[in-house]
Amino acid sequence: MAVGPGTLPDFFPVAGVKLGIASAGIKKPGRKDVVVFELAPQSRVAGIFTRNQFCAAPVTLSRQHLAQGAPRFLLINTGNANAGTGKRGMVDANACCEALARHAGVSTTEILPFSTGVIGEPLPVQKIVDALPEALANTAENRWDEAARGIMTTDTRPKGASRQVNLGGHTVTISGISKGAGMIRPNMATMLGFIATDARIAPDALQMLASELGENSFNRITIDGDTSTNDACMLIASGQYSGPEITLDSPLLPELRVALQQVYLDLAHAIVRDGEGATKFVTIEVRGADGQQEALDVAYTVAHSPLVKTALFASDPNWGRILAAVGRAGVDGLDLDALEIHLGDVCLVRNGGRADDYSEARGQAVMNREEITITIDLKRGDTTETVWTCDFSHDYVTINAEYRT
Amino acid sequence: MAVGPGTLPDFFPVAGVKLGIASAGIKKPGRKDVVVFELAPQSRVAGIFTRNQFCAAPVTLSRQHLAQGAPRFLLINTGNANAGTGKRGMVDANACCEALARHAGVSTTEILPFSTGVIGEPLPVQKIVDALPEALANTAENRWDEAARGIMTTDTRPKGASRQVNLGGHTVTISGISKGAGMIRPNMATMLGFIATDARIAPDALQMLASELGENSFNRITIDGDTSTNDACMLIASGQYSGPEITLDSPLLPELRVALQQVYLDLAHAIVRDGEGATKFVTIEVRGADGQQEALDVAYTVAHSPLVKTALFASDPNWGRILAAVGRAGVDGLDLDALEIHLGDVCLVRNGGRADDYSEARGQAVMNREEITITIDLKRGDTTETVWTCDFSHDYVTINAEYRT
Repeated sequence: MAVGPGTLPDFFPVAGVKLGIASAGIKKPGRKDVVVFELAPQSRVAGIFTRNQFCAAPVTLSRQHLAQGAPRFLLINTGNANAGTGKRGMVDANACCEALARHAGVSTTEILPFSTGVIGEPLPVQKIVDALPEALANTAENRWDEAARGIMTTDTRPKGASRQVNLGGHTVTISGISKGAGMIRPNMATMLGFIATDARIAPDALQMLASELGENSFNRITIDGDTSTNDACMLIASGQYSGPEITLDSPLLPELRVALQQVYLDLAHAIVRDGEGATKFVTIEVRGADGQQEALDVAYTVAHSPLVKTALFASDPNWGRILAAVGRAGVDGLDLDALEIHLGDVCLVRNGGRADDYSEARGQAVMNREEITITIDLKRGDTTETVWTCDFSHDYVTINAEYRT
Repeated sequence: MAVGPGTLPDFFPVAGVKLGIASAGIKKPGRKDVVVFELAPQSRVAGIFTRNQFCAAPVTLSRQHLAQGAPRFLLINTGNANAGTGKRGMVDANACCEALARHAGVSTTEILPFSTGVIGEPLPVQKIVDALPEALANTAENRWDEAARGIMTTDTRPKGASRQVNLGGHTVTISGISKGAGMIRPNMATMLGFIATDARIAPDALQMLASELGENSFNRITIDGDTSTNDACMLIASGQYSGPEITLDSPLLPELRVALQQVYLDLAHAIVRDGEGATKFVTIEVRGADGQQEALDVAYTVAHSPLVKTALFASDPNWGRILAAVGRAGVDGLDLDALEIHLGDVCLVRNGGRADDYSEARGQAVMNREEITITIDLKRGDTTETVWTCDFSHDYVTINAEYRT
């Protein structure tokens, strides 16, 4: 199951970013499971990585390589996460980078590796190495659609976003793809995002954008509260557009930021819509918080509550469960009499209990929708935070209980 | 579903503690839904209450009355939680206490009220008041069995524990009952525990015992991570036994403590075994932690992970999910190479990855059991903490999605 149509957009090619796809047969013969990004010289890359303490070998290696200079290639494989693989995992990840470097005539540190798939199995290095010539032979700027499919694991559909904006008289193109279906499956580890633009962006501005845009999108979605060992989201700026370099104090930065943020959000939301067993796309907005931490504590406590999520699955406007989740979010001194909770445009809770004008019929009408917003106003301050999640269905249990059988 | 036989013990009566049961017809006509504890004069009571910021009216009132002196009665109703009921909730809870005080000839502040059931509906005060004469007319020391049934809501079975120990030549009796089936259902709010002993215990020792024994039992179980608005656990000491008063420095205190702790644990574990949809009883032990907080952070992150819980349901020894949960528990500087994870007596993770001597067949053999222990050794310090939980099944979704329909 998944929420909404979920069709891929018509991708705009990004000048200076070529995509190559190949089949290494890692899990299934013939399946496209290797994707290569080939970046024009002078491209810049910044990214964010999982905060899981046990990050996978490719995450460690990508971090190291990124610190040593501008990458020329991204190498992604599905079917195997190369996580929980000990010292051998690092050797294997490096061997794949070395092979690609040799074929392409660049240095090993110019390759960023990404792996996604089963945890704890040795990476089938030779299969990946053998597939590299095929991938390199067919790189082209118009293969985003195939790349979106090539990074899928248990996703039920490919995920992409693309747009062009006018930035001070110069056309900027942004295209991106993502994958992920449980906010994480440690077994099919998990979320990846690759966003490319032809804008020329100064390194510090690029890192700021990669951090902040990721924080407001991929770091605000949750399906089951787990965090993968392999999560990564990379922002590529090829610098091939006709405009000037965007720096931290550039007047064009805010506009570029808005355009990029929309692509990040589209890709992040696509993961929630394809959440394991998802039948609802749920926006949880916490307003009136006294600072970001308490806003996020309340939002995530509601978003992760199995009782709230099963009620959403049942289209049950069970405001008592939302209220109880807010109350246990660890925020001291909440004022129940001031608190307001809305479901869509229907007020559920006001003046310390069920709102006087609430009726089950009105709550039910909102709950029946496929896209639902829960707004919680703490009336304590002026901070607002939003997270996105999905419901918790029988299919979630089926998918995760039967994954290995 | 539930784990184990779950039969009630033969209860030892506790001298000075009488139980009365009545039917108020709060949700269903004829159902026993009111339980009264009548305590002999000089009895002492201490307890712990929910930390949910939006605690129910009876919790607030019980806290107030407890601060004003020794209670003579506990009044428990099921079918309605009197939570999320605003100012009216306090008026209603007080009205029930006033009526019982009038019937029994004690003061209102000598009554502790407890409610459990649906959130957000007004308490049917008159029905409860009308049932009080019946409850008071039949109080007796040998009605623990009926009381255990009388405090049930969606529990599939009553929960009790009882034992006698010899304390310095004097027989001490301890009996207790509990209820709860989701670690919380904000809708059927939720966990209650009542433990009585005939020992004479000094007030400060009693409060210490109530806090610490509850902390190590009821505060170490989790079914779905939610915390009720109505949770409460009370320890009653009637003081009718033949021995001396137990004080904080009494040499008999450690032995009494051990006996009480076992009753608390039995009652807490009974709640997990009756967890909504539970098919497994799971002990999660974190060893080698550098302090209690990180031990509990790791234990609860594993215990709450929907991916770990669905794997337990499927009897799938999916060590990657346990590993990833440990890694995201928010503990900085974990050493994957030092970490060890055991499933029962089978080592899953050692030296940074799957243990060399692990085999799927050995893991599967442990997973097939109904009672499973997961041991996580962080190898950072000498703190050990244990929490208990259950698995996450289709029935959990069914029960919580269809609760109100």
